[in-house]
Amino acid sequence: MNQGKQHTDIEIAQAAKLKRITDIASSLQLLEDELEPYGRYKAKISLDVLNRLAERKDAKVILVTSINPTAAGEGKSTVTVGLGQAMNKLGKKAVIAMREPSLGPTMGLKGGATGGGYSQVLPMEDINLHFTGDLHAITTANNALSAFIDNHIHQGNELKIDYRRITWRRALDLNDRALREVITGLGGPANGAPREDGFQITVASEIMAILCLAKGIDDLKERLSKIVVGYDYDKSPVFVKTLGYEGALALLLKDALKPNLVQTIEHTPAIIHGGPFANIAHGCNSILATKIASKLGDYVVTEAGFGADLGAEKFFHIKTRAEEINVGAVVIVATIRALKLHGGASKDSLSKPDADTLKKGFSNLQKHIETIKKFGKPYVIAINKFLNDADEEIHALLQWSKEHAHPVSLTEVWEKGGEGGLDLAEKVIKECEGDTNQITYLYKPEDSIKSKIEAVAKIVYGADGVEYSPAAEKQIKDFEEQGWDGLPVCMAKTQYSLSDNPKLTGRPENFTMNVRELRPSLGAGFLVVLTGEILTMPGLPKKPAALQMNVSSSGKASGLF
Amino acid sequence: MNQGKQHTDIEIAQAAKLKRITDIASSLQLLEDELEPYGRYKAKISLDVLNRLAERKDAKVILVTSINPTAAGEGKSTVTVGLGQAMNKLGKKAVIAMREPSLGPTMGLKGGATGGGYSQVLPMEDINLHFTGDLHAITTANNALSAFIDNHIHQGNELKIDYRRITWRRALDLNDRALREVITGLGGPANGAPREDGFQITVASEIMAILCLAKGIDDLKERLSKIVVGYDYDKSPVFVKTLGYEGALALLLKDALKPNLVQTIEHTPAIIHGGPFANIAHGCNSILATKIASKLGDYVVTEAGFGADLGAEKFFHIKTRAEEINVGAVVIVATIRALKLHGGASKDSLSKPDADTLKKGFSNLQKHIETIKKFGKPYVIAINKFLNDADEEIHALLQWSKEHAHPVSLTEVWEKGGEGGLDLAEKVIKECEGDTNQITYLYKPEDSIKSKIEAVAKIVYGADGVEYSPAAEKQIKDFEEQGWDGLPVCMAKTQYSLSDNPKLTGRPENFTMNVRELRPSLGAGFLVVLTGEILTMPGLPKKPAALQMNVSSSGKASGLF
Repeated sequence: MNQGKQHTDIEIAQAAKLKRITDIASSLQLLEDELEPYGRYKAKISLDVLNRLAERKDAKVILVTSINPTAAGEGKSTVTVGLGQAMNKLGKKAVIAMREPSLGPTMGLKGGATGGGYSQVLPMEDINLHFTGDLHAITTANNALSAFIDNHIHQGNELKIDYRRITWRRALDLNDRALREVITGLGGPANGAPREDGFQITVASEIMAILCLAKGIDDLKERLSKIVVGYDYDKSPVFVKTLGYEGALALLLKDALKPNLVQTIEHTPAIIHGGPFANIAHGCNSILATKIASKLGDYVVTEAGFGADLGAEKFFHIKTRAEEINVGAVVIVATIRALKLHGGASKDSLSKPDADTLKKGFSNLQKHIETIKKFGKPYVIAINKFLNDADEEIHALLQWSKEHAHPVSLTEVWEKGGEGGLDLAEKVIKECEGDTNQITYLYKPEDSIKSKIEAVAKIVYGADGVEYSPAAEKQIKDFEEQGWDGLPVCMAKTQYSLSDNPKLTGRPENFTMNVRELRPSLGAGFLVVLTGEILTMPGLPKKPAALQMNVSSSGKASGLF
Repeated sequence: MNQGKQHTDIEIAQAAKLKRITDIASSLQLLEDELEPYGRYKAKISLDVLNRLAERKDAKVILVTSINPTAAGEGKSTVTVGLGQAMNKLGKKAVIAMREPSLGPTMGLKGGATGGGYSQVLPMEDINLHFTGDLHAITTANNALSAFIDNHIHQGNELKIDYRRITWRRALDLNDRALREVITGLGGPANGAPREDGFQITVASEIMAILCLAKGIDDLKERLSKIVVGYDYDKSPVFVKTLGYEGALALLLKDALKPNLVQTIEHTPAIIHGGPFANIAHGCNSILATKIASKLGDYVVTEAGFGADLGAEKFFHIKTRAEEINVGAVVIVATIRALKLHGGASKDSLSKPDADTLKKGFSNLQKHIETIKKFGKPYVIAINKFLNDADEEIHALLQWSKEHAHPVSLTEVWEKGGEGGLDLAEKVIKECEGDTNQITYLYKPEDSIKSKIEAVAKIVYGADGVEYSPAAEKQIKDFEEQGWDGLPVCMAKTQYSLSDNPKLTGRPENFTMNVRELRPSLGAGFLVVLTGEILTMPGLPKKPAALQMNVSSSGKASGLF
């Protein structure tokens, strides 16, 4: 994100002097055999480290979340990086644990997703492009499974798979609207049978969610085997296990399962691994990354996608239930821009100072604070300062926080790196110290599917109730019959609103959530609940970011910003 | 390939003790800054090495080719690795330069393509799976371009691209017949406009051919800019340059352009890079890999896809014309099995000793020898010995070679590694010493398109003449008008026969080649000439190799063979 400063993110990144990744690893007391360097500044970490440090006390984990974001994002990654850097400046041993960027949005709108300014992870070009190939491995496994399914049908269809009821879709790590709905198998019998299919973006693949929840290779394989690929002519589910490909898929993913070590611009260690969609999936980096970071540092700073209604809710209900995570405190990122949007400002006027509209937007922040309190966790509001925020606006937000006794910190981590987050770091550490490490869950796994959906809808979103389409009603009954109702729900909802209507900004009231469809993600271990229309394959804008990208004769990247 | 021995290739590979890749690099006097390790046993080599060693004399390059192969292949890669190892045993500084395997055939039929037995490149699991991500980068660039094209049309189609005449196809590195012909853009205006498209396997992408012929990043970008993606409503070609994405595509490929260093089971350095299809493209590893190997060793052992009619012909006419390569000698690999097939044996009876049928098959070998002679190069026949070859069969082939004064060597590199190829190495070195390094080309670039096609068809294939479909006739005229007729031709032909009919084994006579269609690969710098039906997307067999693949709790691969 370029905040209108003299230097763009990529210029700041390329001017930085990196340490060798082996030096970063040494600072974490990683053994030489536990590190596989990928070039000079990236490495994969062996899962063996978890055995070696099994007895070590887990770090306190700080979750960075935000209010409902604008399309540009509110700088959660930037605050995550800045906070980690600030904690290290305070002499704490902090490790950052983040998600991997997806190439589709990078080539399309975003140009990159590695923090910004002086709070970036590096080398930003590599991380934003192919990195260590994890997403490519997931794309390959996803599409290999599709090829195996179609081949099974083509070669006689022993399992009687109903090709009209194949739910497994193909995937690419690109923004490509033309692939949302396709017909495959055209051209005669030698090419298989025509059927409807579609591509989703790789980060929306269940395999991405699985990779992020797996605790090791055996668990990965077990989860892969449970994927439902579709239904047979008796309407019984067909699993990967029935097809017999869980071994090959796990083999394709064996290196992708290892978390990646990089560094920030201030040499704070950062483990970047996995990046599931925060609407269709759970939006958190991998359990293995968070766990390894917990064993290597005293504090882990991590993030979850979109606002607290999506990422944080799933972080608690899905991630911390799949693996014990010692959550110390939550940081809620807010920007003046987004709060004005929630106060009713139009998208074009967000740069214009307007403290009155801003104040109206505090209701959105208020709701997310209430949610974090419900989970029983202490929090700090981080105001991610932009250059054109007016003093009176900042003042109004600080004043409001003070009046309501909300811990708050004005952070300038984009401009000043860790230095700009020292106050935030001190407040977060203080909150962690007072915390009991207990999480209050808003529902129990054994609650009925509808109770679980309604708990999230009412408590987190503020809805009056939930309405189910006839298809969803039927699916809930089917899932109960299959015995899948003990899984947590993974809500797929717009990130722009607390409700399922992206236009309802602020803190919507008197609304009903509409559940359109459910999808079993048995490998990931949750039931996806679709509310409204959720696109799982983005499109490119009229002038994609890729048009500005280039590489020099000597291999230097430009146009990632 | 498991020759029925006690140990499979993967078992032999996993029992091997590898050296650190940094040690292999040191043995080549590579500087530390010229190496980017990918894990402990793989590395990318910086292109800077070519500047540093610009003045050093180029190595002698030995090309390994073969007779028309069976579906299982005749062990060209195994002989390439074994020969490199043998030369090192003789005290010569030999570097191997090979192609990267494609995942599609690995998951489908082949299970791997890294040589076999005691003549393998390692780590075979990594090389056969994702390696250093080169193919994934090519897949991504290929499909990003498709997304850019469809997005251009969707966003107003300023360039008036005729969506019925888009020639650029999508790609995946998988065997997936269901993707050969698809309709994209379904589901209404938000998803773009429906059109016919198809996927080819990544190694058939023009971007793969470009990567293998580019001499550096600037040349890569220049070649990418020249790709024809289709035609506009005035039937004028639309180039990548016109769309403006050559910078982004080059950026996606900047690391894939760097050759990969690994080692053989006997620690001979091997540079593995690029793997274009040998029918639809030119079938040779990258120019950069061959060139770097030429600067680091005194001998380079390299290979070209399929038989000498395809790979070797294109190696000479396309690769050595794009970059000066100091070709010393050619090795023609023959197996008793394949020669029996060419003599008329059925596929099921190839293991049965049958010297009479074998002798009839010598005609195929004879033709390839004549071809290499026409190019003015010395050669050695390498008999790649299989365990069940009968002594009388081996004897018959040795006898025939002697009678016709063909240099010949019985190699046992699968079983014995370099030791099994010492005689071959000595003979090859002797032939290189006597060679003048001149190549006699069979056509000149400025010849007409038809003269070029006919030169290859008559001299290399032994055809009486060439017939052109009306479509091909029209294309030839169009290409001449566009000024594209100065490019070499890249013949797309079945690998199983010297003719365009895969069933005509041996040395077919009195046949006509049928040219069905031409395709401009202006980025690669050649005109693809399609004879007969060429599939650019393979399918999976009834029981894919993937069914046997697995990975253990500790990450050890199995089922690659």
